[in-house]
Amino acid sequence: VNSIRTVQEIQDAARGAVFLGAGGGGDPYVGELFLRDQLAKGHAARIIAPADLADDSFVLSIAGVGAPTVLVEHLVSARTLLTLLKASEQHYGRKVDALISAEIGGANSMFPLALGALAGLPVVDGDGIGRAFPSLEMTTFSIYGLAATPSVLVDDSGNSVVVHTKSNRVAERVIRNVAVSLGATIYGSFYPMSGLDAKRFAVAGTLTQTLEIGRAIRECRERCADPVQGFLQALRDPKGIRHCRLLFDGKITDVVHETRGGWHFGQATLESTRSDGPGGAGGRLVVDIQNEYLVARRDGRTVAVVPDLISVLDRESAEPLTAEMLRYGQRVAVVGYSAPPELRRPESLAVCGPRLFGLKEDFVALEDIPE
Amino acid sequence: VNSIRTVQEIQDAARGAVFLGAGGGGDPYVGELFLRDQLAKGHAARIIAPADLADDSFVLSIAGVGAPTVLVEHLVSARTLLTLLKASEQHYGRKVDALISAEIGGANSMFPLALGALAGLPVVDGDGIGRAFPSLEMTTFSIYGLAATPSVLVDDSGNSVVVHTKSNRVAERVIRNVAVSLGATIYGSFYPMSGLDAKRFAVAGTLTQTLEIGRAIRECRERCADPVQGFLQALRDPKGIRHCRLLFDGKITDVVHETRGGWHFGQATLESTRSDGPGGAGGRLVVDIQNEYLVARRDGRTVAVVPDLISVLDRESAEPLTAEMLRYGQRVAVVGYSAPPELRRPESLAVCGPRLFGLKEDFVALEDIPE
Repeated sequence: VNSIRTVQEIQDAARGAVFLGAGGGGDPYVGELFLRDQLAKGHAARIIAPADLADDSFVLSIAGVGAPTVLVEHLVSARTLLTLLKASEQHYGRKVDALISAEIGGANSMFPLALGALAGLPVVDGDGIGRAFPSLEMTTFSIYGLAATPSVLVDDSGNSVVVHTKSNRVAERVIRNVAVSLGATIYGSFYPMSGLDAKRFAVAGTLTQTLEIGRAIRECRERCADPVQGFLQALRDPKGIRHCRLLFDGKITDVVHETRGGWHFGQATLESTRSDGPGGAGGRLVVDIQNEYLVARRDGRTVAVVPDLISVLDRESAEPLTAEMLRYGQRVAVVGYSAPPELRRPESLAVCGPRLFGLKEDFVALEDIPE
Repeated sequence: VNSIRTVQEIQDAARGAVFLGAGGGGDPYVGELFLRDQLAKGHAARIIAPADLADDSFVLSIAGVGAPTVLVEHLVSARTLLTLLKASEQHYGRKVDALISAEIGGANSMFPLALGALAGLPVVDGDGIGRAFPSLEMTTFSIYGLAATPSVLVDDSGNSVVVHTKSNRVAERVIRNVAVSLGATIYGSFYPMSGLDAKRFAVAGTLTQTLEIGRAIRECRERCADPVQGFLQALRDPKGIRHCRLLFDGKITDVVHETRGGWHFGQATLESTRSDGPGGAGGRLVVDIQNEYLVARRDGRTVAVVPDLISVLDRESAEPLTAEMLRYGQRVAVVGYSAPPELRRPESLAVCGPRLFGLKEDFVALEDIPE
């Protein structure tokens, strides 16, 4: 795509971003509202492929930081985003040429588009992960050696913090705590990089992917008797690189949520309602949450685990649900979707594999797990 | 004084700083070692009276931030202090003309002297409080409207953070959390101010006071049969502005310590061992701690409360003890010392009075409480 120019495109992209958010990244709704407002004023961000970036251009990631449960309660302010851009350019001592999402999943897909529309800056069709993850250092940028800082952080009250750390893990800890100190909603600039680095390290095409996924869900809803099954068909990759499958079909019988230390922790338990679905009648699925859905276990056996994506869809409409939207009694379909190949390499699993989330198991690819 | 040039002077100043620290501010021992090392190299900070500052000079507070229990475990590094100065001058865009302590109590009396000796900068004979307090905004600088930020923070590992907040209370929260994130030992520059502001708002003469108090204790130890009583005599203010009294004479029968959220919390319980002391035989004193000794209650009745100073001295040597030094079985004298008059004004009590520490009582001046 070259831009996101219609209300339908904005809604599609937001819906696709929730799917790729794998439960986390926050509801893009606040960003969607903001983009619709910009569109009404005639502003839309131009989208460019990584390949079209000049090697020596200056590319910056823009993201909201905080527990998604808090993030969604605040509206995006044009003033705050422009303050962030101005303070960042001042700190880095140069003009920003293009914006890029650090993570395409959830609300952080929208903020670069919002600032891009506001400030007339192009947004790169790609991101640092192809999904959402709870920690700043869990990006291909970080995995391949780029520094997340210097990072400029601002909030709506005019407070600002500049963080410069020697490691991205320390940056994550400091920035998370600054977010908590400032009431848990801050916007920041991260991973200042050259156009060449963006070309080499970004997961390409993920902005287009949000749009395509969102559109597929919308169209299946309009045309298919079973939108979830229709969407799974649409998601199938003819090249066989990315895999998807239905993990569970059932009803949420228990869900716990907790916001702690700037994160949203939780667990959802589902019971099967169909004898013809995976797990059969009486089966049980438990999904662990740290902002994102980390692991899904069916009757005690892992059926999908990070960095592969787990998404929960409303059973009737196939609408993807963020983790904080899950409620007792909801009928849902749980879908597994393999991570971008970049994230499944050993160097990536050392940064965002299951053990980094405290899980006592190694990564197994979705397609290698018996159905 | 014009400088602190002998090992004995350094030791006296450190001892006096512990007394004025009222249990908090951290053990100045690491700063003392550093100063002795500087002295051996022929470096000593020049001390200047606030009145000798040019109105348009640039004065900066330098302080360590973190729970004192953590602060004392780390040695001061010359490289870190010089990095702090350089990063601060770069951020503020001007050369620092003089350093000042934000709080004279505890270790933060030493860091400006250490950096002053290292960098050849004079240190102002005064501070922002005349004692130690657990929060950054509890200073006369803050009470009279100066901003604590922009603040430059550095640690020994080369990490740095610049904080710019709209209020000093928010600054305290952010900076405390940055300290916790970075392992709880950071050094920072605070309250950038003009020489005129330093003259108008600093509590003057407190560096000289540390030296005089420390010397008095040393001399009483050498000359008096009862050093504690001798020191109380020496502390008596002929002008009648500052008051002191012995609050308790006894043995520590219980003490609890907890480091939480970047602070040291605790409570010490003492039992009287002398029938001729305050409280008589069998009396009981309880002291509440948040970094500093906040309130002393004898048999349930308040006998001294913040911002007045409470100090605990070793019963035999009259050596002042920081809160984290208190141990079961120690024989101690507890002394009350009235706060500088600046801190007892209504505008000051609104920032550092008993209720700001969660105590359910109003301030009563030491000298107005029946003995």
